[in-house]
Order: sequence, then C-alpha cells, then structure tokens
Amino acid sequence: MRAVDIIINKRDGKELTAEEIQFFVGGYARGEIPDYQAAAWLMAVLLRGMTPRETADLTLAMVHSGQTLDLHDIAPLVVDKHSSGGVGDKVSLVVAPLVAASGLPVGKMSGRGLGFSGGTLDKMESIRGYRVNLSVDEFRRQLKQVGIVLSGQSIDLAPADGMLYALRDVTGTVPALPLIASSIMSKKIAAGADAIVLDVKVGRGAFMKTVDDARTLAQTMIGIGRDAGRKCVALISDMNQPLGCAVGNALEVKEAIDTLHGGGPADFREHCRVASAHMLLLGRKVDSAEAGEKLATQLLDSGQAWEKFKALVRAQDGDVDMIEQPDRLPQARLVKDMPAPRSGYIAGMNAAEIGLTSVELGAGRAKKGDAIDYAVGLIVHRKVGDPVSAGEALFTIHANDEGKLASAKKRLHGAVEWSGEPVKPLPLFYGVVE
Amino acid sequence: MRAVDIIINKRDGKELTAEEIQFFVGGYARGEIPDYQAAAWLMAVLLRGMTPRETADLTLAMVHSGQTLDLHDIAPLVVDKHSSGGVGDKVSLVVAPLVAASGLPVGKMSGRGLGFSGGTLDKMESIRGYRVNLSVDEFRRQLKQVGIVLSGQSIDLAPADGMLYALRDVTGTVPALPLIASSIMSKKIAAGADAIVLDVKVGRGAFMKTVDDARTLAQTMIGIGRDAGRKCVALISDMNQPLGCAVGNALEVKEAIDTLHGGGPADFREHCRVASAHMLLLGRKVDSAEAGEKLATQLLDSGQAWEKFKALVRAQDGDVDMIEQPDRLPQARLVKDMPAPRSGYIAGMNAAEIGLTSVELGAGRAKKGDAIDYAVGLIVHRKVGDPVSAGEALFTIHANDEGKLASAKKRLHGAVEWSGEPVKPLPLFYGVVE
Repeated sequence: MRAVDIIINKRDGKELTAEEIQFFVGGYARGEIPDYQAAAWLMAVLLRGMTPRETADLTLAMVHSGQTLDLHDIAPLVVDKHSSGGVGDKVSLVVAPLVAASGLPVGKMSGRGLGFSGGTLDKMESIRGYRVNLSVDEFRRQLKQVGIVLSGQSIDLAPADGMLYALRDVTGTVPALPLIASSIMSKKIAAGADAIVLDVKVGRGAFMKTVDDARTLAQTMIGIGRDAGRKCVALISDMNQPLGCAVGNALEVKEAIDTLHGGGPADFREHCRVASAHMLLLGRKVDSAEAGEKLATQLLDSGQAWEKFKALVRAQDGDVDMIEQPDRLPQARLVKDMPAPRSGYIAGMNAAEIGLTSVELGAGRAKKGDAIDYAVGLIVHRKVGDPVSAGEALFTIHANDEGKLASAKKRLHGAVEWSGEPVKPLPLFYGVVE
Repeated sequence: MRAVDIIINKRDGKELTAEEIQFFVGGYARGEIPDYQAAAWLMAVLLRGMTPRETADLTLAMVHSGQTLDLHDIAPLVVDKHSSGGVGDKVSLVVAPLVAASGLPVGKMSGRGLGFSGGTLDKMESIRGYRVNLSVDEFRRQLKQVGIVLSGQSIDLAPADGMLYALRDVTGTVPALPLIASSIMSKKIAAGADAIVLDVKVGRGAFMKTVDDARTLAQTMIGIGRDAGRKCVALISDMNQPLGCAVGNALEVKEAIDTLHGGGPADFREHCRVASAHMLLLGRKVDSAEAGEKLATQLLDSGQAWEKFKALVRAQDGDVDMIEQPDRLPQARLVKDMPAPRSGYIAGMNAAEIGLTSVELGAGRAKKGDAIDYAVGLIVHRKVGDPVSAGEALFTIHANDEGKLASAKKRLHGAVEWSGEPVKPLPLFYGVVE
C-alpha cells in the first residue's frame, strides 16, 4: 500500500477501504506519511466527501492512533456530553455536577477557548487554585471517590486527530463534515464514553450556520457512535445569540453558580435542564426525557447539584470560599453599562461578534498560549425579541483597560440589530436527533 | 495576503487573481510557503480547475520564479519545439538540424528519459564525448557560431515548476490539465521561445489517452502562449505504437542518421517533415505549411540537414567518426530476432509496454540517477495494419544480458494484438491546432 495511491483513490471519488484509512491515518500519526501527503488527502476528502462507513473508519483509526481510557471499573455506564462550542456556553459547569448529583459518575475532559468560543477549562481556572492537569491516576481516583471530574486531557487522546486538526487549520480543510464529525467523536470514544449527548449549535455564533447543516453533522456523529457501539443523542440548539447572559470566564462561573442555586437566566437554566435530562436518560437514571427534566429541576432546586459542584472544586484544589462568595472571584476594575441608543425591539445579535468583543477585552486568546484575563467580559441584558427603551442598559462591560472598554462599546453597538416592530424571540432548540 | 486564504478561494471554486497566484507560486519558490500548503492547493486546483486566465498567470508566475533566457541578440525570432514524450520519439535529432540548416537558429534545451519515454539528452550521449552540460555562455556562443545547440538546461528555468512537479508526483496531483500545460509552457517561455511547435501525443504510449483530451491540452497551451505573446501551433500525433522502428538510445541515433541521409522509416520521416514545416512557417522561412514540407524534403535529401547534425556533434565534442560510421556507436552483445508466433494482421501494439521493455533491457532508468546502457533496445519491424506471416521477424532485440533478453521476448509477445482480418493502419496525426 502506498500513501499516494490512497490520495489518488479519494481524489477520484472512490470509497476508501478500512485498511486504506487505517494505513494513512496510522502512518501519519507515526510520522511515516509527511504533512504534504496528508494535506493533499484532506483537500480530496473535503471536496469528494466520505461515506458514513469511511467516516466511522476514520474515527476509529484516530481513536487507535493513541491510548484509550477504560472507566468501566468505576462507572458501569460512562455518559459524556459534547458541545460544538459557542458564546456564553457554560453548560458543562452546571450539567456535570447536576448529573453527578444523581449518582451517575461524570468524568469530563474539556478544552480551552478557541476563536470567539470560550472553553470550560479557562472558566474553571478563574477559581483560584483549581487544577485542570490531573494525572490519569488522579482522574480515576477522584471519579471513584467524588463521582465528578472536570479536567483537561490527562492522556493524549486520539493524537492523529490533534495532528490532522493543526494541519487542517493551515490548509483550508477545516469545514469538511466527515473531518469535523470524526474529530469530535474520536476524542469522546477514546475517552471511554458509552453514551454521549451532543449539543450541536447552529447560527451566527456557531460553526454550523443552518439547521440543515447542524442536523447533518448530528446525524453523521450519531452514525459514527452507532458504528462504534456507542449510544448518542444530539440537541440542535440555537447560537444566534449568546446562551444566558454572562460572557467571560469569572462572569460565567458566577452565572453557573446562580443557576446551581436554582436561579440563573431562564434560557440557560432551561438549556441545562434539557441537556441533563438526556444524559440522565442515556445513563438509565430515568426512563423518559420528561422524567429527566423533572429530576434535573429537583437536583438544581434542592441544592444537590451545587453541593456536587463544591465537592468538585474542593477535590481539584480550587478555593471554595471564592465560589461560596462569588464576589471574591476575579473582578474587573471598570464596570460600565452600555445603554440602548434607541427604543425598539432587538431583531438580532451577532453572537460571534459578541464573543470576539469578549476576547478583545482579554477573556480569550488571539493565539495559543496567550495569557487571559479571567475578570473581563460582558453581561447581555436583552435578547432577541425583547422590547427595549432608549437609555436602558443593553450590556454591562467588565474591562481592565479604558481603550479596550471604548472599543468594546463600539463593537457591541454594531453587534445589535433593531426593529420598530415586535420580533419573535429565538427558540432554544431546533430539535433532537436520535 | 495569506496562503491559506488562497487555498480556500480555490477550494471554493473561485477564480484566483494574478496577484494571488503570483503570491502563492513566488512564496512557494522562495520557501516561504510550505509543501503542505502547496499540496492542498494543488489538489484544489486539480479538483476545481482553473480558467485559461488563471492558467496563463500560473505559467508566468513559474517563469518569473527564476532566470529567463533572452536570445534575441542572436536570433531575431526564436523557434522551439516541444514533444509531450513517447516511445521511439527521436524527432528532435532530425528536426533541430533540419530547421537550423534552413538558416533559422535552433537552440534547444532537452530533457532525459522518464518512465517509458526516452529523452533526447540520453540519446545524444550515446555518441562518445557529446557534452550536454553547456554553460549559458557556451550555449549562446555556439548558437551564434554554429546555428544549433542541443543541450540540457544551462540555467534553472522556472524553478517553481520543478518544485511543484516533484510535489505533484507524490501527492496524486499530476493529471490536472492547467498544471500539465503550465509546466510545459513555463519552461519554453523561460527559455526564450517566441514561437513553439507543440507535438502533443495521444494514445497508449502517451499521457493523453484520447484525442479530445490531447486537443484540450493543446488548446490550453496555445492559449497560454497567446496570453504571453508567443505564437504556438500544436500537432496532435499518434502514440498508440512506437514512432519509427528504433527504441533505445544508440539505435534511435542510428535511425535519425538514416533519416538525415534521406532514408529512415516512412512514418518517422513524414513526422519530421511535418513538424519541421511548422517550425519553418513560424520562423517565417516559408509562407505555408506545404512550402515548409517541400523545403524540409529538400534539406533532408540534399544532405544539408545531415551536415548541420555533424556540425552540432562536433561543436559539442561528440565523436564525429561514430556518426559517420554508425556501426561504431555502442553495440549490444546479443542481437536476436523475435519471430511472429502466427500469421495475421497486427491489430494493436502497446507502446507503453514496448517502451518499458526497452527500459528493462537497460535503456532507461527505474529511478533518477540510474546508469543506462546506450546499446540496448529493440527494432520494431511491423506496425499496426501490417500483414505478417508466422515466423517473420516482428522485433529485433538488442540486449547485453541473457535473462533480460528472455524477459523482453515474453513482454513483447504480450504487447502485440492480432487479427485474422485486415486492420486499418493508424494515422500519424489526428489534426493540427492553431
């Protein structure tokens, strides 16, 4: 078998065999196939596509390019969740302790922010002392003893995916459905998940711009899961505007804490209830999504989810005082309301633009390795469909720099669209794919 | 401008601007754009295509990636010829001295054999002493004094083409029309040609398998030439069977010498007459192709073309005795006829297979840098359409190794197809594209 023949087969639109895919991905991961051959192959995959069978084989080839985690000695049924990322998406901070509070162990490996999207690890690190770099042994011990872990990758899961992802970024081969789907699923499968709730975002603040594209991605990932013997369900959820109100690391932690106390913005709380319900259902804690939502409400309102979150922070050496008194979380020096320039209805909010405003304030990274400012970000006070009177606060900006504050104000003005007529609010979800 | 955006534009089927193409090709030639980005871009070009304007800009970007030759102080109108390569194609050995004998200076830079195709430099090197590595100064001086040069590239013409060609070979991106056409034309334009006769081969021993494909390639090259202010004409010529009878370096030199004496196989002589006629026409030595053919016949039959060939060999330090007495050219130890296994008509000859048989005898290289045996090869005695009686010599094999001789016999048997019914001979040409 030669790498160039596998490139040629895909170039000519042929379906690759499992052996060809394994040869190519394995060879690339071992450094035997050079970047330039992988780059040509990725472009051929993007332009020619892959069948569901090829996509599943690609996923498994990436899974087997490195170590895999087996947690069955701790949790008979490992349930995980993946979000395709978005602005204000602090769902894991609520859902993980909520589900763990039901008695279902949740050992979650999360990532950092990328582009306009925030990352769970960055958010948790705004809690002083919180450690995200657990070893595999620590991960397993904590999952057994505390029933919850929220950390970075303790092993290099699916290393071929990491290599291919870096190459895709510089070769114009990111937006290929089989590559996106296999990248997500390979990490989840390698991390040992038996069942996965996929939160596929759609809209201006998401990679998928249409509900149809999001549904196709969801179906592709569910198909991969099924072929690999994993049970998946996907929520198609809105990301045309930020989820909840807070955007920025410490601000989002505060909002998650409010929600864990039974409060929080209505849209965010609802999103967490629905996502949790599906995890509880896949984990066989309930026998219907409705029962799952009921249990979720109870775990939030009773404080059990909050207690589990505290146990998580304590176990990972985070400063529990900080979450018990959230005013002690990092605070920005400059906190300014941005008033509405006119009366009317909010017709649209550019979620990506709002995310980038937060990044520009310092909440995210322009490039890998940049330091971030946990305190900064913004609060969104009005959502699409809300009536607004001129002068009311639309946003509150949390900044540590006058220049950045001024720039954020200008940018946020441009991110809001107005209507004189009433506008329908955006839905939270566009459907569930099973 | 960023390389990745240029890849994305081509991926999405957009027409690239001249600036984008120049940025990409120039950046790649200078080592600023890595192989993996070029590989992804080449695959996008292969699958998305290029407009004639883009192809012309690509050609010029490759021309300007290195030095160019200007011969106008020696020849007011520089006429060149390019063959897309084939089996038994020793046309340059006859056409170059023929056209030079008319008073039109011919300074030709040729290449070596590749795959089943022979190369002009290899053929000329079977003449003892013949030097192909002239410096630019030597090239210019000889062109002025002798009116003819047949050498290797004295400068690195269109280096971006050389780099991209090597990358295409290992990334499955060879068979892309804009890439093939721009590769050929960039070398010819950089070498200073004002007018070019393109000999585009079609058939089993050629890269282009159908007349339509060959015509499209011809039209693309002619368009590039026109956009670059060069006048081109293309012959679409048959390469389903070898051209002439001799295949192998010294054997082909002998056949060229016969032809330069007014003899030689009819098909080869005719091909040389037609190709020369078009060069004479482009070079304004005649005012019609018919007058060109008449002049070509006269230059062959009068011995003037032969005298120019001798002057060429002498000027480049070749052993003139060897060409005056061709029996002194390298001779193989084993010379065996291969008799026809049956009576009938030749229905087909696999030219590529015959070329590879010659390579296997030692006349070509399995890989770059291999030594070659000038003496070996084969003579084809019968062509498609010829009636044959069982036992007549079909081929004469010239070998220096018993094992290789036996293997060649077997291979040649497999390369011939038979019919009991009369078969139409193959045409020499399928048309002329202007």
